[in-house]
Amino acid sequence: MYAIETVQDIQDMARGAVLLGTGGGGDPYIGELFVREQIKRGRFPTLLSTDEVADDAFVLSIAGIGAPTVLVEHLVSEKTLLKLLAHAEAFYGRRVDALISAEVGGANSVFPLALSAISGIPVLDADGIGRAVPQLEMTMFSIYGVKATPCLLMDDSGNVVNLDAVSDRSAEDLCRALAGAMGAMAFGAIYPMTGKQARTFAVQRSLTMALEIGRCIRQARETSGDIFGKLITYLNSWEGRTARILFDGKITDVTRETRDSWHHGLVTLRGLGEGQDECTVEIRNEFIIARVNGRPATMVPDLVTVLDRESGEPLTGEMLGYGQRVKVLGYSADPMLRRPESLDVLGPRMFGIDEDYVSIEDLANAPISPPTPRYEETTWNQALAQS
Amino acid sequence: MYAIETVQDIQDMARGAVLLGTGGGGDPYIGELFVREQIKRGRFPTLLSTDEVADDAFVLSIAGIGAPTVLVEHLVSEKTLLKLLAHAEAFYGRRVDALISAEVGGANSVFPLALSAISGIPVLDADGIGRAVPQLEMTMFSIYGVKATPCLLMDDSGNVVNLDAVSDRSAEDLCRALAGAMGAMAFGAIYPMTGKQARTFAVQRSLTMALEIGRCIRQARETSGDIFGKLITYLNSWEGRTARILFDGKITDVTRETRDSWHHGLVTLRGLGEGQDECTVEIRNEFIIARVNGRPATMVPDLVTVLDRESGEPLTGEMLGYGQRVKVLGYSADPMLRRPESLDVLGPRMFGIDEDYVSIEDLANAPISPPTPRYEETTWNQALAQS
Repeated sequence: MYAIETVQDIQDMARGAVLLGTGGGGDPYIGELFVREQIKRGRFPTLLSTDEVADDAFVLSIAGIGAPTVLVEHLVSEKTLLKLLAHAEAFYGRRVDALISAEVGGANSVFPLALSAISGIPVLDADGIGRAVPQLEMTMFSIYGVKATPCLLMDDSGNVVNLDAVSDRSAEDLCRALAGAMGAMAFGAIYPMTGKQARTFAVQRSLTMALEIGRCIRQARETSGDIFGKLITYLNSWEGRTARILFDGKITDVTRETRDSWHHGLVTLRGLGEGQDECTVEIRNEFIIARVNGRPATMVPDLVTVLDRESGEPLTGEMLGYGQRVKVLGYSADPMLRRPESLDVLGPRMFGIDEDYVSIEDLANAPISPPTPRYEETTWNQALAQS
Repeated sequence: MYAIETVQDIQDMARGAVLLGTGGGGDPYIGELFVREQIKRGRFPTLLSTDEVADDAFVLSIAGIGAPTVLVEHLVSEKTLLKLLAHAEAFYGRRVDALISAEVGGANSVFPLALSAISGIPVLDADGIGRAVPQLEMTMFSIYGVKATPCLLMDDSGNVVNLDAVSDRSAEDLCRALAGAMGAMAFGAIYPMTGKQARTFAVQRSLTMALEIGRCIRQARETSGDIFGKLITYLNSWEGRTARILFDGKITDVTRETRDSWHHGLVTLRGLGEGQDECTVEIRNEFIIARVNGRPATMVPDLVTVLDRESGEPLTGEMLGYGQRVKVLGYSADPMLRRPESLDVLGPRMFGIDEDYVSIEDLANAPISPPTPRYEETTWNQALAQS
C-alpha cells in the first residue's frame, strides 16, 4: 500500500490517464483538482495492490456515467461523494473494503482516488480495462462475468436510482438514459465484486502505469527533452507490450458530430516533411483506429493517443484543432484485451469498423502491398525505424 | 366490495376509461383483453370502496409508464404482472393490501384490474386524477404530498429499477427516460400510500364512473338511440359536475407531431349544418382545450372528449381522422381538481396555453363579447340549449 502524497503525483497520474484514455473517457482535470485540494489538506488517497486485498473483500467501482464533455465540477464535492458511498453501503448492505476504477483512462481514474482521500478507503492499483471504453459491457469485469449491476446511480440534486439489469448491455442503455435525465452526468457505484475477482479479472497495476507515464513525460520534459524516446522506452518496459510513434504531423482537419449518443469524428493530419504522407484517426468516443496513407497502423483495443509534439502532453479528442502539431502514438493493449473473448466485445467491428482486429505488431511487420515508391521514405517508415 | 364478473362489465369499463382519458392515456384495449381472458377462466377483479380499507393498509399503484401509442401486448402477461408485484413487495418490504389506479383515464385503468384478477388483491374504487394526465406530478397524490417514489420500474426482459427522487417532477423525468430505454414502455409500481391517504386524496368512485359511463353508452345504443342525451343525464347526475355537448360536426383536419416527448396536435371540425361554425381541439397528449369559433368552451383540467356521433363510442386522439363525424363533449373535472393548489399544477398554463383556467360552467354562461350575428344560431348555442 502506498499513498499519493504530492500534488505532482496526482498531476502526473491525471496526465497518464489522458494518454490511456485514448482521446476519450472524459478529462480528469476536475477530479484532479479535487484530489489536489485534499492532498494540500493532508488527506491522501491510498493505493493497494490486488495481492494485498482479502479474497472476500467487498470491492466497488465509483464512476462518472454520462456525457464525458459535460463539466462535472458541481458534482465532485465531498458531500456528494460521501453520500454516494453511504447510499451504496446501504444498498449493498456491506462496508466497502476497497474501491476500484472502472476504467483508468480519463476522468474515471481519479473519482475513486477522490473518494479514497476523504473516506480512507484504499483504491486498488488496477482497473476494468487498462484504457477507456465507451460502454459498461466492454470491461474485463463484464467480459469475465462480474456484472455491472446491481448498481446505484445518484445525481447532485439527490435522486437515487438502483438498477438490476438482465445484462450489462441493458445496464448500459438504462444508465445512459438515466444520466441524460439526470443532467447529462451522474455518479455510479457499479461492478460490485470480491477481492479475488478484482485480482483475477482486473487489469493490474494500471494506476501505477498512469502515474509513471505522466511522471516520465514530465521528467523528460524537464531534463533531456527526448520526451517521446523516453516515453516509448517506458511503455515498452511493460512485459508483452509495444509502443510506436505512428505519425508526426500537423492537424489539417477535425470533424465531429454526436449521433446516437456517440461522439463520431475524424482527425486528418499531414506529415511535416516534404512528403505527402497523411494520417487519419477515427473517433468513436475514443480514438479507435489510426491509418497512415490509408493503411491501418493501430486499431482498437490497442491504444491510439495523440500528443503535443513539443510538450508531449496527451490530448483528448476535444482538445484537437486545425494546425496543431502532434505525434500519434500506438500502444498495444494489455494482453487480457487481446484474448478472443475480449476481441468479441472490444474489436473494431464493435465500433462500426468493417475490419478484423490486427495487432499493432502485425500491422508494423506486414508487407506493404502493393508496394509503391510513394510509401518508401514516409514518416511512417521513419517512425517504425525510430521505435 | 364487488367483483367484475362479466366480460361486458370490463368492456363497458374500458369504454368509459377512454372517455375519461380525454383522448390520451393510452388505449385500454390490451389490458381489457387480458382481463376478459381472466374472467372467462373465473378469475374476477374485485373493487373495494376506500371506506372499506384500513387506515394503515398498504396501497400501491400499478401503471404503464411511457409512450401510450406503443403496443404493450407483450408486456401484459400473468408472469410479468406477478413478477412486478413480487419485486414491489420485496422492495417495500410489505404485502400489498390494495391496488389503486394512478389515473382512471386510458390504459392505466385496467392494469390494476388485471393484477387483481390473477392475485386476488382488490382494487380501490378510486384513482389519482379522475381523468388522464401526462405526467406523474399531476395527480392528486402528488399535489397533496403522496410521493410517486420510492417506486419500481420493470420491463418485460426483466430489468428492474428502483428510484427515489427528490420530487415527483424529477421522478417523471427519470421514469420517462427509463421507459424510453426499456423499449418505450415499462410497468411501474408507484405512489406507495396508506389506506387513509387513498381515502383522503384519491378521486373517489372513479372506476364505478368509468363502468357506468360505458354501460350507459352501450345501453342507450341498444335501446333508445338517444345516446348523448342519456350520457349527459348520467354525467350530470354526479354531484357538482356538469356535462355539455360542445360541438357536433365533421373533422376537416388533424395535425399531429411528437416534440419534446409530448404528442402535440390540433383537430379542426366544421359544423354539419348550413353555418360556418368551426371547432378546434388542441392535443397535448390529451385533449386540453376545445374552442368553438375561436372562443374557449372547455379547458384542462375539465375534460374534453370526442365521440363518434352515431355510436357514441369515445375516441382516442390516435383514432381521429379526416371526415369522421363526431361530437365534442365537455365535462367538468372532479371538484378536487379545481382547487387553487390543483390548478397550479393542472391549469392550462402547465400545458403551454397562455390563458387562465375558466370553468366549463363559466365559459357557457359568459356573454359573448363583442357579440356578432355570426354566433347567433350556432351549434354551440344549440348545444347549450340541449344540455
